[in-house]
Amino acid sequence: MTRPVVRLALDAMGGDKAPESVVAGADLARQRFPAAQFLFVGDEARIRPLVERHPGLAAVSTYRHTTDVVTNDAKPSAALRAGRQSSMRLAINAVQEGAADGVISAGNTGALMAMAKLVLKTAPGIDRPAIATAFPTMRGSSVMLDLGANLECDARNLVQFAIMGDAFARTVMGTAKPTIGLLNVGSEDQKGHEELRTAHAALRDNKLDLSFHGFVEGDDITKGTVDVIVTDGFTGNVALKTAEGTAQLFSSLLRQAFAGSLGGKLGYLLAKSALNGFRKRIDPRRYNGAMLLGLNGIVVKSHGGTDAFGFSNALGAAIEMIANDVATKIQEELQHLGSDPIDTTPPKPRTAAV
Amino acid sequence: MTRPVVRLALDAMGGDKAPESVVAGADLARQRFPAAQFLFVGDEARIRPLVERHPGLAAVSTYRHTTDVVTNDAKPSAALRAGRQSSMRLAINAVQEGAADGVISAGNTGALMAMAKLVLKTAPGIDRPAIATAFPTMRGSSVMLDLGANLECDARNLVQFAIMGDAFARTVMGTAKPTIGLLNVGSEDQKGHEELRTAHAALRDNKLDLSFHGFVEGDDITKGTVDVIVTDGFTGNVALKTAEGTAQLFSSLLRQAFAGSLGGKLGYLLAKSALNGFRKRIDPRRYNGAMLLGLNGIVVKSHGGTDAFGFSNALGAAIEMIANDVATKIQEELQHLGSDPIDTTPPKPRTAAV
Repeated sequence: MTRPVVRLALDAMGGDKAPESVVAGADLARQRFPAAQFLFVGDEARIRPLVERHPGLAAVSTYRHTTDVVTNDAKPSAALRAGRQSSMRLAINAVQEGAADGVISAGNTGALMAMAKLVLKTAPGIDRPAIATAFPTMRGSSVMLDLGANLECDARNLVQFAIMGDAFARTVMGTAKPTIGLLNVGSEDQKGHEELRTAHAALRDNKLDLSFHGFVEGDDITKGTVDVIVTDGFTGNVALKTAEGTAQLFSSLLRQAFAGSLGGKLGYLLAKSALNGFRKRIDPRRYNGAMLLGLNGIVVKSHGGTDAFGFSNALGAAIEMIANDVATKIQEELQHLGSDPIDTTPPKPRTAAV
Repeated sequence: MTRPVVRLALDAMGGDKAPESVVAGADLARQRFPAAQFLFVGDEARIRPLVERHPGLAAVSTYRHTTDVVTNDAKPSAALRAGRQSSMRLAINAVQEGAADGVISAGNTGALMAMAKLVLKTAPGIDRPAIATAFPTMRGSSVMLDLGANLECDARNLVQFAIMGDAFARTVMGTAKPTIGLLNVGSEDQKGHEELRTAHAALRDNKLDLSFHGFVEGDDITKGTVDVIVTDGFTGNVALKTAEGTAQLFSSLLRQAFAGSLGGKLGYLLAKSALNGFRKRIDPRRYNGAMLLGLNGIVVKSHGGTDAFGFSNALGAAIEMIANDVATKIQEELQHLGSDPIDTTPPKPRTAAV
């Protein structure tokens, strides 16, 4: 049985090392996912020669030429106005037109979310899309959302994030019955601000087919207490970056310890292969690929500074989402929601909150 | 020149390993700070025999007997009502009566803050006390506040936290001109919600004698980008616990890597002394002691699960705060604030937000 073809639109000019890392990442992904086809969007004169170094890749690649790019410091509103011919925008357009099944960019996150919302629109039943990522834990890996698309969220948003996170964990991460936790400053039911308590009650009492654990705290994120961590975009962004920073501090101090003495250096040499497994386990490139969930289409944001290996993992995440039809799974789960399980919270307008 | 005596009231019954770890911690602190004297508050029949095992400690110790304790799961409001004769309350009372210069407890944080506010009162010019802690960074150590006393903060609260953090860094941490950052999801001036932007403008423009860096992000916490991280209690609590959890994940995976193969085990033995420095650098017990700033009195919360070494560091933090007269430094800096530098934000009532 051959897997159906998966067609990916790539913003070939997004990211610090584009287009080189984008092309090299696509070639790595092609080897892991033979069903993948690539539409490179950007400066064809620069991209095509890079692609043609990999005959296997060239055979499954097409191009959409443009010289416009969205810069990293562009505000989303400015990118929307001035970036209509940018590589990012044309790559998103390809999904909307049906020329691709998903889009990947390592460019400006805010611009990507704003353009994706404008072009692909928010999925039915979702008030606000969210950004999600997987990360390593004591028990394996979990997913957290939102990571910054929505700085303030009401209970209704949080419940929808729980549904999207559940669908993502089930389909892409292969977790049979994902447990879901709401990030708070304590695990008792009465803790935290009102939106959290309302979301807690809705997730606890409703008819959703979710395995709701309750409130979790910051240290539960890496403990792997739950498979899905639900939070507002402000808290999620701070938590994710704090974890990244702490991991960097650890790595740096550990490197210094090994390098600082003869015993350290010799010990490192002996333990090297054992430590390689450790390094691999926490390699942020393995977890590269932030998913923009809740849109009519698959959109994945790669870290801007990642290399080919990192980019290939963002492509892998997109391919898994397409192959497992995450969007449909989210829609199915939303049916359980009924009209509105959160009576105390009036629905908010679908504002662009990037 | 002899240092003036520093008198500490100890909630001897607070914490998972009390009163043993409290007594042993006091004995360690006494060896480092010969000017310290201790008032043990709690079950004298249990405490006194422990103290008398250390003749040096017994010579500088007195007792206040009570058998009441505040449990870890008690709500602050219940602790206020029912805990009037608890070891925690009587230890705080000792500061209010002038029998001690500061109080240390490893008990229930919410109850400690609520009782301290009730008994000692909030300091003049401060709307809400905050919880602060030091933590290791790439550049040394920094301090962050609030860590959970105030789940929602307005711009005025954040500016006051900046002043308190500055005074703490200057006096206790010995940083000559501490730099201050406001925790946000981006470093551009226009990022984040309104209270943050108002606080940013006030800290940028005002007449305060502060070295304001601007907005910082989650990964700046451990980078040591600034000496003082200012944030609301919800975000600060999540960030601190996320960092702790990430550190635990790292330590655990590293231990597994060393233990998992012969090379790892041998390498570990060779690198052991080099790694001891690393372990020491990130030892959470070294950073034990959360300061309740903005009260009329020195109050330090020790981690409930720490051992004697950890508890002695919480005592050390209290001693440094007393010896350096942090409370007076905060009051001096508040003078610069004038009537109200934040015209857009009406002062909030002094509500108990624990």
